[in-house]
Formats: sequence, structure tokens, C-alpha cells
Amino acid sequence: MAVYTDVSAEELDGFLANYDVGQLMSFKGIAEGVENSNFLLHTSKGAYFLTLYEKRVALGDLPFFLGLMGYLKEHGLTCPQPVKAKNGEALGTLAGRPAAIIDFLEGVWPRRPNVAHCAGVGQALAKLHLAGHGFSMTRRNALSVSGWRPLFDQAASRADELQHGLRDFLNAELTYLEARWPKGLPEGVIHADLFPDNLLFLGDKVSGVIDFYFACNDILAYDVAICLNAWCFEHDHAFNVTKARAFLNAYARERKLSDAEQEALPMLARGAAIRFLLTRLVDWLNVPPGAMVKPKDPLEYVRKLRFQQGVTSLRDYGVEQPGCAA
Amino acid sequence: MAVYTDVSAEELDGFLANYDVGQLMSFKGIAEGVENSNFLLHTSKGAYFLTLYEKRVALGDLPFFLGLMGYLKEHGLTCPQPVKAKNGEALGTLAGRPAAIIDFLEGVWPRRPNVAHCAGVGQALAKLHLAGHGFSMTRRNALSVSGWRPLFDQAASRADELQHGLRDFLNAELTYLEARWPKGLPEGVIHADLFPDNLLFLGDKVSGVIDFYFACNDILAYDVAICLNAWCFEHDHAFNVTKARAFLNAYARERKLSDAEQEALPMLARGAAIRFLLTRLVDWLNVPPGAMVKPKDPLEYVRKLRFQQGVTSLRDYGVEQPGCAA
Repeated sequence: MAVYTDVSAEELDGFLANYDVGQLMSFKGIAEGVENSNFLLHTSKGAYFLTLYEKRVALGDLPFFLGLMGYLKEHGLTCPQPVKAKNGEALGTLAGRPAAIIDFLEGVWPRRPNVAHCAGVGQALAKLHLAGHGFSMTRRNALSVSGWRPLFDQAASRADELQHGLRDFLNAELTYLEARWPKGLPEGVIHADLFPDNLLFLGDKVSGVIDFYFACNDILAYDVAICLNAWCFEHDHAFNVTKARAFLNAYARERKLSDAEQEALPMLARGAAIRFLLTRLVDWLNVPPGAMVKPKDPLEYVRKLRFQQGVTSLRDYGVEQPGCAA
Repeated sequence: MAVYTDVSAEELDGFLANYDVGQLMSFKGIAEGVENSNFLLHTSKGAYFLTLYEKRVALGDLPFFLGLMGYLKEHGLTCPQPVKAKNGEALGTLAGRPAAIIDFLEGVWPRRPNVAHCAGVGQALAKLHLAGHGFSMTRRNALSVSGWRPLFDQAASRADELQHGLRDFLNAELTYLEARWPKGLPEGVIHADLFPDNLLFLGDKVSGVIDFYFACNDILAYDVAICLNAWCFEHDHAFNVTKARAFLNAYARERKLSDAEQEALPMLARGAAIRFLLTRLVDWLNVPPGAMVKPKDPLEYVRKLRFQQGVTSLRDYGVEQPGCAA
């Protein structure tokens, strides 16, 4: 939950005068998102999001994120669209922060994803990968394999505070992954954070992909691996083969996974697990006093990583040939 | 900012099935309100608030608050209305908490109230006092004069941590007020917390009074005194006579202030100042580690109290005869 910057009605009125979004009727700070300050606006024309970008988001990355949202929408993905100001710019300034007005998408993110939701994310992710093809801007993934060791170094000396032996466990896993991280797989624009709270549904149907603030260029199947970890485990940390099958089949029906991608998936899933494990660990160890954000549990991802270490092929995910009837 | 209880879409769907509010389109936790968890819902029928009552609100008081909102609306005040469930009840249960669906009112609360806003609150407050006449339920004000000494006793030993001499200052003021607190003034339903964040405007026009969770029966002019402190000081703590005049005149045009009320107002304003000073002081000294709510500054109300101690008549508020042209 987060609203870091409050905005006065007077400042907001001045800002909105630059846009063709109608008269302001109400605005409410939203208790969602840990990177930015988000407000839900009602105007005489409808509902919009107002996002103020706080310091964790690099200003130089904003044109990539906003441009990508526009490009993906143009290429058939249902996602929010930045509203351009009268001067043609999607990015403005409000309360001393970079700020954007973005379409409000109706929909509810699934607190308890079911099999239909997992199929939904598979289809949406593949559509995103296809829609991103040809996008001209690029952003490297700072949280891919070369970014993990520096995170580990920040957290190593205190990792065992969370779990005895965690430091050695992480070090060994990193060494393993650094030596074997796949090369030559298809790359493109990935979402890189398509957790349940970033996918909206109306009923069982996807109504929109949101929150592109980790999007970057990387291995497409790595994005599949991130979702496998994020969507296909139960609250008791058991892997759910039925959900994984629904997810992978739905993905592959939209975008075929090559043999090389299928073979690499367990390794990519180990990488995806350690990536979230490490950022959660660093956040956990660096919660400022009086923080308004409760850090997520790193140990959830230790369990997921241990599961992925035991996977030898897609059969462990419940599929023989993704996209073909079981 | 506050969302203490998260709600799953599944739970919410089940809850909404008891109401005739249409299909759920989206719901967002709102970073406002420190007593309850609030969500803004969009449904196929419109926008609603969902409030989950957390432990600071006494369950036994909810029928008073919800009944009052209905009564005031029926009697001409623009305020949100609880939506009755199909069984006729305004109060239900969700995620183990008492919960209610309430009309969403459009409007924006003024971060920097101007003179027109101060006239708006004067008129709205008087309308509220008139509309509340005849409401059959009652709730005593636990935060009136007899409630202050127990708050002081909780905070006294640590009061000087905030400001040297604060303990003695508060003790002397309480002794003074306890001996002289007015009796026999007109009483009725008061809002008791009509700060700028509880009054919505569209432009300079009031669009609704919200948040009735401190409402109670008490001296009507005490409510006037609360607003005088909450609306008529500048950010630099200077009292603004122009705002006070606009506020008091607008109030008195709707509901005349008797001579006794006018005479008592400076004393009531001292009481209103110490009431918020004491609750803020107790909150300030009891912030739990990792709290998600930033406590409000008690010293703001020390300055207001010192101002009110110097007031001898309504002339110090800029008015001779409230409600008459200056």
C-alpha cells in the first residue's frame, strides 16, 4: 500500500487543464503499488489513474514504459493506455514528480487464482510477447542473471538471520545458474512482474494487463518461468500441476514454445525464483523504521526454488507437449 | 492512510450478492481514513464505498452512525447513504468484520481551504444541525469535557517529551475548562469531526458531508468551535479572520446562534482545541512500531489553544453579529 505524495485539488486542477479528460469529480489515493503514488480519478469523462513516479523508478525509463503501453495496446493487448496531454506528451509533472494520466481498466485481480485464471495469464502473457514484437525502444533487465550477485552481496552477511544456511544455499545456487544460464533463446519485451495483482479479470476473463514498470527486454521464456512461480503454487507452497498445465497450454496455444525453450524452462524457473527471493531478501533486511509497506516473505521463494531444483523436465509441470491436448 | 483488512474477490462477490448493486467491475483499497478499511467499488450500477469497521469503532455504535446518515439525507443534508441489503439491513459481515456498502459521493476535499470553502462548511454544518433535529437514537460524546482528563492521565507523564512545560499547561487548562464548561446551551446531533477531509466540494460548492464515525449528541455550538479550529487557521498557524467571518456568517444565516451560544464560543473553542490536542498526543505517544499511519502533530493544537485562550469575544473572530452583513 502506498501513497507517498499527496496532491492538492488546486495542483491537480492545474495539471488536468493540460489534458482533455473533462472536469475532476473526485480523486482518491489508492493503497496499491509499492513503487509509485497512485490515485483513482473520476472526471466528467470517466475514470482514470493518476500515477506519480517516486524515486525508485528511474526517470529515464518512463518513456520506455509509457511508450510500451501504447504500443502493446495498438498491437492488440488489453492494457491501460497513457493519456496524452494537449502538447502530445504522455509524461508531465505534478507536485514535483513525473506524473502520467492512464486509462482506468475495470477488473479485479484474483486473490486466490483458480485454474481458469492460470489459463488466462498464459494466454495474456503470450499475447503480450507477440504484441511487443517490433517495439523500437529497449530496456535491459537489471534483474536478470548478472544483477543477482550484487543483490546477494548486499544481503549475504545477514541472510542466515532468516534461515540457517541461507547464505550458502544462495551462493551455491547463484554459482550454478551463472555457469549454466541459457543463451540464444528467443528474446523480446517481457513484463517481468506478471503476478496476480497485475492481471485484472471480469469473471474468469482477462480484462487487462497492468503495471509495466519492470518491463524490459529479455528471454521470453523467462517471463513464462516468472509466472509459473507466481501463479502455480498454493498458499501452502505446494506446486499445483493442474494450474501449471492450464497455464503452459494456454500460453503455447498463442505462442509455441520451441524445444530449446521447453528444455530451458526449469533452469529459467530456478532463476526466476532466486530473482524474487533476492529482491525480497534485500527489502526484508532494509525495512526502514515506520515503513508503510510490509515486505513480502523471502522464504516463500526459498520453497519455490527448492521445488524448481527438483524439476527435470516439463513432465514435472504436468505437460508433455505444451499447447497440445493432454 | 489505511487498509487493515484485505478482501478477496470471491468473498466480496458473495457479500455483494446480498445487495442490489449490480455486478462488481473493480475494487480498490483507499488510502484514507484511519479508523476503518475503505474500498472504492465500481459496479455495473455505479460507484460505492465499502467500509469494513475495524476494532476502534464500537460495534454497538454502528446502528447510530448508519441510521444517522439515512436520517440526515432524508432531512435534506447531502451525505452518503448506506445501501440496504436485500434483507433490509444496512450492516453486514465481510472478512470477519462488520461491513457496509455506502453511496459514493463525487467531490474533492479542499487541501487548502479558501474563504468560499469556509462559507461552505458553515452552511453545511448548520444544515446538518437542523437536519439532525428529531433523530431518535442518541450517542453520548465520549470525547467531551468529562473524557479529557482520562486522556490527559494517559499522556501526562510523557507530555513534556513533545514540549517543555506541556504537562502543566494542559493540566491548568483542563482545570479551567472543567470548572467553567457551559451548560444549558442548545444540544443535538453533532458531526464532531468536520475537518476539511470530511467535506467534499465540486468547485466551491459543497457536494457532501462524509465520515460520521464521531457523530454524537452534544452542544451544537461545540461543533461550530471544532470547525473554527479546523478550518480558519493558516498552515503557518495564523488565525484567518476573513475565513472565520465567512464561516460564522454562513452558519448563522442557516441557523441563528443565540446570545448564550455566541458568548460561549471562545470557551467551546478552547475545549475543542484541547480535545484534538489530547487525542493527537495520546496517538503520538502510542504509535506502534511499523505503524502504517503517520500520527498528526499535537503541537498544531497547542498553538490553536493558545490563540483561543486570548479570545474574549466574537469580535476576535472578525464578527459583530454572526449572520448579519458586516
